[in-house]
Amino acid sequence: MCVVTGLEQHSADVVVVGAGYAGLAAASRLTAAGLGVVVLEAADRVGGRAVSEVLPSGVRVDHGAQWIGPSQKRFHELAAQYECGTFPAWETGRHVEVWHDGTRSDYSGTLPKSGPGIVEYGRVTALLDELALTVDLDQPWLTPSFEVLDAMSAEEFFHSQTDDEDALRRLAHAVQGVWCCEPREISFFHVLFYVASAGGYGQLVSGSAQDSRFADGADALALAMAASLTVRLGEPVLTIRHTADGVEVITGKAVVRARRAIVTVPPAALGRIGFEPALPAARRGWTGHTPMGRVAKVHAVYEEPFWRKKDRSGIAALHGRNPVGAVFDNSPQDASRGVLVAFVHGDSVDRWAAAPDDVRRADVLAALAEVAGARARMPIDYAEMAWSEDGWTIGGYACFVYPGGWTQYGEHGWRAPTGALHWAGTETASVWNGYVDGAITSGDRAADEVLSASRS
Amino acid sequence: MCVVTGLEQHSADVVVVGAGYAGLAAASRLTAAGLGVVVLEAADRVGGRAVSEVLPSGVRVDHGAQWIGPSQKRFHELAAQYECGTFPAWETGRHVEVWHDGTRSDYSGTLPKSGPGIVEYGRVTALLDELALTVDLDQPWLTPSFEVLDAMSAEEFFHSQTDDEDALRRLAHAVQGVWCCEPREISFFHVLFYVASAGGYGQLVSGSAQDSRFADGADALALAMAASLTVRLGEPVLTIRHTADGVEVITGKAVVRARRAIVTVPPAALGRIGFEPALPAARRGWTGHTPMGRVAKVHAVYEEPFWRKKDRSGIAALHGRNPVGAVFDNSPQDASRGVLVAFVHGDSVDRWAAAPDDVRRADVLAALAEVAGARARMPIDYAEMAWSEDGWTIGGYACFVYPGGWTQYGEHGWRAPTGALHWAGTETASVWNGYVDGAITSGDRAADEVLSASRS
Repeated sequence: MCVVTGLEQHSADVVVVGAGYAGLAAASRLTAAGLGVVVLEAADRVGGRAVSEVLPSGVRVDHGAQWIGPSQKRFHELAAQYECGTFPAWETGRHVEVWHDGTRSDYSGTLPKSGPGIVEYGRVTALLDELALTVDLDQPWLTPSFEVLDAMSAEEFFHSQTDDEDALRRLAHAVQGVWCCEPREISFFHVLFYVASAGGYGQLVSGSAQDSRFADGADALALAMAASLTVRLGEPVLTIRHTADGVEVITGKAVVRARRAIVTVPPAALGRIGFEPALPAARRGWTGHTPMGRVAKVHAVYEEPFWRKKDRSGIAALHGRNPVGAVFDNSPQDASRGVLVAFVHGDSVDRWAAAPDDVRRADVLAALAEVAGARARMPIDYAEMAWSEDGWTIGGYACFVYPGGWTQYGEHGWRAPTGALHWAGTETASVWNGYVDGAITSGDRAADEVLSASRS
Repeated sequence: MCVVTGLEQHSADVVVVGAGYAGLAAASRLTAAGLGVVVLEAADRVGGRAVSEVLPSGVRVDHGAQWIGPSQKRFHELAAQYECGTFPAWETGRHVEVWHDGTRSDYSGTLPKSGPGIVEYGRVTALLDELALTVDLDQPWLTPSFEVLDAMSAEEFFHSQTDDEDALRRLAHAVQGVWCCEPREISFFHVLFYVASAGGYGQLVSGSAQDSRFADGADALALAMAASLTVRLGEPVLTIRHTADGVEVITGKAVVRARRAIVTVPPAALGRIGFEPALPAARRGWTGHTPMGRVAKVHAVYEEPFWRKKDRSGIAALHGRNPVGAVFDNSPQDASRGVLVAFVHGDSVDRWAAAPDDVRRADVLAALAEVAGARARMPIDYAEMAWSEDGWTIGGYACFVYPGGWTQYGEHGWRAPTGALHWAGTETASVWNGYVDGAITSGDRAADEVLSASRS
């Protein structure tokens, strides 16, 4: 008899959707507690926004997340537990700032100390730190003046504080670099929340969030964690049927039944999944108000880090017309090759990504030549990653929040569980929101929700 | 030998995604021109946001689109061609306005002529009409002061014009009723565009857009059009692979290959479909800035339209604390039953839909009793439709645009074709955007794009 094979049928205690750091952290914790866990991942790899690759020139580069900083405790704990070695990011030598009119100035230390608008910029960013101290990270809606701060865009706040065009340029550059969007788009409250979540503005823009890198790529830890878990790769979740008592998670290949699900995809990517019944209005509204940032990361590889010989660090902030906003030295620890990484952020990504291959490349190499010298125009290897074009992540580094979004949907839509559905992902973290460390602690927190629900 | 069946393989000249009025209009025009067309529809019915049902009490009601107005020419043309009969909407008798403090006042004609804030309201809405005259409907980005108008929310504009709290209440009520969102959320330029698209503010808020109804439901025309087309129901599109030369549209059951595709789903629903390669940044950004409105429609059925005997029209505008904002007499033409329809709009939907069944029903019946008398509390039949919870449409009546969205993404993201992909749906219409008529003309326009591309 010939039977046409239907969907595979599986069951588990908990289904985890997404095998990025949030999903892997949740699954590890639940597995350790003795629960049966199935992780479903749409892509054909684990790691989510952490993905490394060995380029043809033999250098391993991180196309996404790459840094780890000293206050990112859980990330450090797990890296130590799984023996993923790190090394200090290269910061030796003179950094350069290229101003919008083409003037250049060198600086050392973590941030420029002089230059157009720097005093006003310092004053406004000090104010960010002061206001961030008032943010309630666990229940942001309890923050004083929450609605007023959230009704404003960052642009409106900056303009209310200063008329200094140069300071405004610096502030816009910082928003682009940290949130991968433009000041007009982002809720000013979200800026404060994020500053508070990182432990201060300086953590976001100086080296603190990014003082070290991973010898074997930032996804090595993800691969190590996944090795002892049941992870089904290449299985996008199409539909999640849910009641208070259980879930049925349906992919193109299988139905997995479980008591609870932890969904870790970024809010903007939630639209790929059909929910039956529909999610509550607050959760739907939240996902509609929290688009992903727009970022591209481009690596250029050279025989050696030639700029170091001239006492150049390879670190640069570019305010010019070139779409590249920031450059770092991403060479391997042994300096067996020279690697520069260029970031394109916000509106610039939209324009840059739409250009033909040769124009995109020429733009990036022109920026690298400004930073490291003319030799930078002739890399031996070159690789682009435009995160906005990734079908499962939809952008990066993380989501931001439109003005009014926190007020309208935050309390009930941000991360409050929906019956048997629990929400994780770095966007749901109170600490280091938007970073790998936040992804991990969000997975921990969602796993704890499931465990405490199972006990009751 | 036992062979596991894979996906069915089909080919066509053109694939149309979505069997609402846009998709059916496009498919009809292409079929008439001699092309082979396959229409793929996720739901198990045609009509999109037009869906009628015979309730247990024997009355047919429209849960979505229901009206047709005199200037909606293509809708009228097709209705005549397919012999779908219409009848005048009931407007006889005294209408009532219930004010926020509970005071009531009757009025006749299309709109209240007296009452709190009415003069200031009239002045501001006249200004909308004046500004709408400057809108370029085909290339909205060419409108004078486009960026300034688009940077503002409707709320910001209203507050810049008047301090009259009552006028502001009326303006908010109008935004809720027309766009199903709140004034703080919507680009003021989008308001002007929509006013211009309808041919004036009065068209949107008086009876002009809604002077007649369909004897057999507003989806009868869709059913008639679909009868001569190849429509595959219950086949959600999962992935669209596209190049300049062709498309592969993949559902759970089949792969359909074609030279071109017309995609008609609302922008907010586009997230359900994976595109390979990713859509251009402008198209992605547009869909992220154009969420659906939030609306629920509730029908209550009575033995007879008892309110008519007391010279009440059953038409009401409610500004009170009750979530219902507007009521109409939706009785069948022969008045064999009495039917009232209540609309819940914007933020009120979020709260109303989250309440338990009995609270939702009690809220609606309390509003109907205010409009039609105490007998309205005892319907013989009752049916709710919360469009925000529809998994394929995600909301209604249509999308709106966040402040800045038109500026940032309109020119390249609104409806410009992407290689072999063409965009239709009422949200892409220049005339009667957001209405069935706009859906039809958007399908016509996309079909014409395909035909002219085929010829060249």
